[in-house]
Amino acid sequence: MAEHNVTVEGTLEVLLNEKKYSTLKDILVTMNPADIAAVFEELEEERTPLLFRLLPKELAAETFVEMEPELQELLIRGFSDTELKEVLEELYVDDAADLVEEMPANVVKRILTQADPQMRKEINEILRFPENSAGSIMTTEYVSLRPAMTVSEAFTRIRRTGIDKETIYTCYVTEDRRLLGFTSVKDLLLIDDDEKRISEIMNPNVISVGTMDDQEEVAQMMSKYNFLALPVVDTDQRMVGIVTFDDAMDVLEEEATEDIEKMAAIVPSDKPYLRSNALEIFRQRIPWLMLLMISATFTGMIISGFESALAAQVVLTAFIPMLMDTGGNSGSQASVTVIRAISLGELEFRDLPAVIWKEIQTAVLCGVALSAACFAKILLIDRLLLGNTDVTVLVALVVCVTMALTILVAKIVGCTLPVLAHKLGFDPAVMASPFITTIVDALSLLVYFAIANALLF
Amino acid sequence: MAEHNVTVEGTLEVLLNEKKYSTLKDILVTMNPADIAAVFEELEEERTPLLFRLLPKELAAETFVEMEPELQELLIRGFSDTELKEVLEELYVDDAADLVEEMPANVVKRILTQADPQMRKEINEILRFPENSAGSIMTTEYVSLRPAMTVSEAFTRIRRTGIDKETIYTCYVTEDRRLLGFTSVKDLLLIDDDEKRISEIMNPNVISVGTMDDQEEVAQMMSKYNFLALPVVDTDQRMVGIVTFDDAMDVLEEEATEDIEKMAAIVPSDKPYLRSNALEIFRQRIPWLMLLMISATFTGMIISGFESALAAQVVLTAFIPMLMDTGGNSGSQASVTVIRAISLGELEFRDLPAVIWKEIQTAVLCGVALSAACFAKILLIDRLLLGNTDVTVLVALVVCVTMALTILVAKIVGCTLPVLAHKLGFDPAVMASPFITTIVDALSLLVYFAIANALLF
Repeated sequence: MAEHNVTVEGTLEVLLNEKKYSTLKDILVTMNPADIAAVFEELEEERTPLLFRLLPKELAAETFVEMEPELQELLIRGFSDTELKEVLEELYVDDAADLVEEMPANVVKRILTQADPQMRKEINEILRFPENSAGSIMTTEYVSLRPAMTVSEAFTRIRRTGIDKETIYTCYVTEDRRLLGFTSVKDLLLIDDDEKRISEIMNPNVISVGTMDDQEEVAQMMSKYNFLALPVVDTDQRMVGIVTFDDAMDVLEEEATEDIEKMAAIVPSDKPYLRSNALEIFRQRIPWLMLLMISATFTGMIISGFESALAAQVVLTAFIPMLMDTGGNSGSQASVTVIRAISLGELEFRDLPAVIWKEIQTAVLCGVALSAACFAKILLIDRLLLGNTDVTVLVALVVCVTMALTILVAKIVGCTLPVLAHKLGFDPAVMASPFITTIVDALSLLVYFAIANALLF
Repeated sequence: MAEHNVTVEGTLEVLLNEKKYSTLKDILVTMNPADIAAVFEELEEERTPLLFRLLPKELAAETFVEMEPELQELLIRGFSDTELKEVLEELYVDDAADLVEEMPANVVKRILTQADPQMRKEINEILRFPENSAGSIMTTEYVSLRPAMTVSEAFTRIRRTGIDKETIYTCYVTEDRRLLGFTSVKDLLLIDDDEKRISEIMNPNVISVGTMDDQEEVAQMMSKYNFLALPVVDTDQRMVGIVTFDDAMDVLEEEATEDIEKMAAIVPSDKPYLRSNALEIFRQRIPWLMLLMISATFTGMIISGFESALAAQVVLTAFIPMLMDTGGNSGSQASVTVIRAISLGELEFRDLPAVIWKEIQTAVLCGVALSAACFAKILLIDRLLLGNTDVTVLVALVVCVTMALTILVAKIVGCTLPVLAHKLGFDPAVMASPFITTIVDALSLLVYFAIANALLF
C-alpha cells in the first residue's frame, strides 16, 4: 500500500501545482479516508486547507478523523466557523470527543461553540469518563428499538435514524433506557413475518459493560465473543452507549504497545515514535534507566564484598557476564510469558502454584542442558582452545552449578513477581525483564561467590 | 466474568449430578458460546458428550468452535457419524478448515468423509494456502450480488442466502467472479428507491488483498480502514473469499504475542502457556538461551584479556554489572521501540537516518543524566557511605565516561539492527533485547578497559 500512496501522492501534487482541481477531486473521491489522510500528512502545510476544501462533506469529515492531531489543529485554525460546523456535523460523537481531548484549550472552546447543543451535551458526557474507561471510548449514537415494535416498524426506525449511527447492525431493545435485549439486522432480515414483535425476536441475554470498566477488558471481551458492538450501561443499568469493534481493535493494539514498552523499561506514551522528539523519548526512558542504574549498587556491593576472593582467582570474573545474561534471559522468558498470559486473561492468581511448578520443571530441563553445554564449552574452548590454564575443572564446576541454580531462581522469580503484582493491583508488565534482571543479577552473584567459596578456597 | 463463570459452572454441575437435564438446557441456551465452551473446559472429560448433546444444533456448533482442540477431538471421537455431520453442517467453512488443521489424520479423514461435497471442496481450497496467509484465514462464504440486480432483488438474495454467511453486512458485487465493487446492507437499507440498480449504488473503489498476502498485513489494513470484512482475490483478480474482522482481531493478538515472545528470546508457539507442558516450554526457550550462552564466550575472552589490569584494580570489576545492565537496558529500549513501530507499519527503511539521529540525541540526554547521577552516586555512596577507598575520582570518571559511551553505542546498535533485519527480509523482533544485550555487553567491556587503560595505568 505504501508504494501505491507514493505514486498517488505524486500525481496529486502535480495536479495541485497545475491547479487541476476538478481532476484532483475526481481522484480523491475514489480513495479511502485513511489513504487520503496519509497524503495530507505528506503535503506541505500551506496546501492542506485548499486540498481539504475539495473533498465532499462526508468524505472530508471521515478523512479529518484519520489525521494526526497536529494536522487537525492546523486545519481547524484555518476553518471559518461555518466550515468547522460542517465538519463537526458529520463526525460521530466518539470521534468528536477524541478531537476535543487532543486539542488545546482555545481550539476546544471553538469546537464546543460550533457543535450543536445535542452533540455538545454528548461530547461532555463522554469526556466525563476517565481515560482508558469504556465510557471514554464509547459512542452515544446507536440504534435503539422498543420491545413492542414490529419488524417493519423496526426497519422504518433503522432507515430513519440509521444514517447518523456508526453501526446499525446490532440494535438494542430498551424501555426507559433500560437494556432489555438485542437483535441484529441479519436476524430482522431473515425473519419472514413483518408483523412479529421485537420482544419475540430479541435475545434477552445481552452482555454489557459498565462505563467505568477498563477499556482493555472491554476489547478482550469483544474479541472473545466476536461482537460488532458491546452496549455500555451506567451504574443504574441504563444504556448510555456502545463500543464498536474498530475502537476495540485500536485498544488491543494500543494496549499491546503499552505492554511491550513497559516490558522494555519504557514509560508508555500515546505519541508514535517518529512523531516524538528526543526530549519526549528521553522522558519515557530515563526513569527506569536511572532506577535500575542506582539499584545496580547492590550488585557492585556484592562484588566488592568478594574482592579478595576475586583477586585470588581473577578467572572467576570472566564468567560473570555469561552468568548474569543467562540468568537475566531465563528470568525474562518466564516473566514475559506470564505477563502476556495475564494480559490475555489466560492466567489468574489461582494458577500460581501450577505456574511455579511448570517453571521449576522447565528450569531443571534448561539448567541441565545449559550447564552440560557450558561445562563442555569451558573445558574445550576456554581451556583447550584458548589455552587458559586458570580454568580448571573445579572452576568449570563452580560456574555450571551456579548457572543451574541461577536459572532455577530466575524462572521462579520471573514467573512469581508478575502474578503477585497483578494480584496486588499493579501492572504486571512492569515486572518484566529489566526489573527481574536486576534482582537475578544480585542473586546469581551471591550464589556464584558462595559456591566458589565452598569449592575453591 | 471469570467469577460469574465459576458460579454458573457450579450450578450446572449440580444440575448435571441431579440429572435435571431440562433445567440445564434452559440455562445453557441463555449463555454465550464462548462462556459455554469455558464451562466445558472445566468439566470432567466423561461428562462433556452428555452436556454437549443437550445444546440445540446451532448453539452446539458455535460452542464447538470456541473449544480447545483437545476437547474438540474428544467430542468428535465420541460422535456418531450423524452427529458429526450435523455439527459440520452448522460450521462456517473457515472454522471447519481450522478444525481440520488442528486434528490428527484419522479424525480429519472422518471429518472430510462426513462433510458435504461442497464444503469438502471449500475446506480443501482454504487448506491449500500457506499458514499465516490471507487465504488460510479467509472464509469462502460471502454475499455476492450482480451489478444488474435491483435493491429489492439484492434483499431477496441476501434473505435467501444470508443465513449461512458469517457476515451479510458487506456485499460484494461480482461478474464472472471478478470483483467490481461493494455495497453494504446499511447503504441498501437507507436507499429509498427499491428499483435502483446495484451498479449505481456500489462503491467501485474496492480495496482487496491477495490470497498469499501476510495475515498480519491484512489485519493491519482492516484495523486501518475499520472494515467489517476485506475481500480476498486470487492472482487473476477473481474473488475467492473474505477475511472478517473477528479473525483479524485474533490475528492482531496472535502477532503481538509472537512479537513479545521473540523479543524475550522465546521461539513462538500457538499453544497457550498454561496448556503447554514443561518439555514444550523447554523447546521454546532453550535455543536462544544456548546461543546467547555460547556467544557470551566473547565477553569472557575480553575480560580474560584484561585480567592483569583487573588484578591490579579489582575495584573495576564491581562496576561491570551496572555498566552491562545499563547498556543492555538502553539498547533494548531503542530496539523494542523500533521493532514495535515496524510491526505497526509506522516505520520503514527510508526512516533510518531520522531514527539514528533521534536515538543519538536521546542517547546524549540519557548519557549525560545517567553519568552525572552515577558520578555522584559512586562518590557519595560507594566512597563516602560505604568507605571503599579504592573508588577514586579517577575510577568514577572511567566508569561514567564508559557509561555515556556505552549508552550511545547501545542506542545506535539497538535502533539500527531491527531496521536492517526488516530490510533484509528477517523478522525484526528477533533483534530485540537479548541479542542486543550480548553485542552491547562485549562493546561496553571493550570501551571500559580501553578507557581504564588510558586513564588509570
